[in-house]
Amino acid sequence: MRNFKMLLQYEGTRYQGWQKQTSTDNTIQGKLEALLSRMCGQSIEVHGSGRTDAGVHARGQVANAHLDTRMSAEEIQDYMNRYLPEDIAVLSVEEVSLRFHSRLLVKSKTYCYQVINSSLPHVFDRRYVWIVPEKLDVNAMETAAGFLLGTHDFAAFTSAKKGKKSTVRKISEIRIENEGEKLSFYFSGDGFLFHMVRIIMGTLIEVGTGKRNPEEIPGILLSRKRELAGALAPARGLTLMEVRY
Amino acid sequence: MRNFKMLLQYEGTRYQGWQKQTSTDNTIQGKLEALLSRMCGQSIEVHGSGRTDAGVHARGQVANAHLDTRMSAEEIQDYMNRYLPEDIAVLSVEEVSLRFHSRLLVKSKTYCYQVINSSLPHVFDRRYVWIVPEKLDVNAMETAAGFLLGTHDFAAFTSAKKGKKSTVRKISEIRIENEGEKLSFYFSGDGFLFHMVRIIMGTLIEVGTGKRNPEEIPGILLSRKRELAGALAPARGLTLMEVRY
Repeated sequence: MRNFKMLLQYEGTRYQGWQKQTSTDNTIQGKLEALLSRMCGQSIEVHGSGRTDAGVHARGQVANAHLDTRMSAEEIQDYMNRYLPEDIAVLSVEEVSLRFHSRLLVKSKTYCYQVINSSLPHVFDRRYVWIVPEKLDVNAMETAAGFLLGTHDFAAFTSAKKGKKSTVRKISEIRIENEGEKLSFYFSGDGFLFHMVRIIMGTLIEVGTGKRNPEEIPGILLSRKRELAGALAPARGLTLMEVRY
Repeated sequence: MRNFKMLLQYEGTRYQGWQKQTSTDNTIQGKLEALLSRMCGQSIEVHGSGRTDAGVHARGQVANAHLDTRMSAEEIQDYMNRYLPEDIAVLSVEEVSLRFHSRLLVKSKTYCYQVINSSLPHVFDRRYVWIVPEKLDVNAMETAAGFLLGTHDFAAFTSAKKGKKSTVRKISEIRIENEGEKLSFYFSGDGFLFHMVRIIMGTLIEVGTGKRNPEEIPGILLSRKRELAGALAPARGLTLMEVRY
């Protein structure tokens, strides 16, 4: 048995997200497992660094799988790229230690959320951006983002049901790049809760349009109440950029 | 009656090209005419600066239409963007002289053809590029492009049937931008024949991969024989960038 680490890209538009579901195989994990199972002639499990929601994209998702094969890493990559649909790509495959696990060993991740601040439709970017027509105050959004930096209980910024699991996470960086009408929000941290980046984005945009004051953020964090944070931003604007180990 | 000039963007992927066809309305022109006819309550004709083939995109297509309406240019634009599918956008509408005609008065056009020189699939660009895995010699392609500049009979570089119409055109610029794996070929000229940019591109790529010598180009032009030029490059890589009047 050998362990292979894969670097993946996908456009999430037509998938029900990363995680395999029992009723359907229209998931990224499902597509990969079906293909590798066919390649190996036995049932293969693929471990991702984490789930991505339906409609969310990845430029640097990492996964690993234990395969009983004589194929080289390069042969596996070629095989996968030949048979995967054109909205999923394998950028690299490398053999790693049997102990490597793409979810359990994550040190940090970076997501990017793209906003187009325009009242016109954007034909070529439309699958990857959230188009916001109202004028945005970038300074106010940066102030609000500053309150989210560091280690906090992000219970107000997740759609996950309350349970025993910790909702404390550390955001090490939020960077806003402003290039004409395009705003790119980069979020780096040790981990992100279910819907966390999208609820933060929804909240930041409400700050940007003046619906909210940046100074509300600390109170929302302390409240731990989902209903005090902003709306869930659309999945299409979100891309998993990098996973570090 | 008033005349309106429209600046249009579209992703050509799911259309049968610009030009309306009798058997179907799955064309850009067909979509626009159906919408404007509904808006005006009478049958409207839309004139484009020229046809784009099935699968070819536009970032700066120009069209005009004579409309019997009291709506302002801005109201027409808003109406169109509200009802057009999300792969067609109207960037601007302005009222122009009744004599303006978007095809007959064209001075020059610029097309861009994008190539990704990579053996890996490109998930996010895939609808807008031609992926060429063989290593490309950019210098050789630039030499070949130089032979195409100026006024020539491009009969060898069109799929149009030979007829009485002139196949003489002037290419004023071919610029190759090289940015990592991405090569962007910009073609400017007074007009382009049916399939002309795509056949030039197919030929340039055959030069880039070493299948052909750049010095073959003058002979191909002189021959006026389509079969001496290269293969037709895929539609997806081609975008109409700008039309000048």
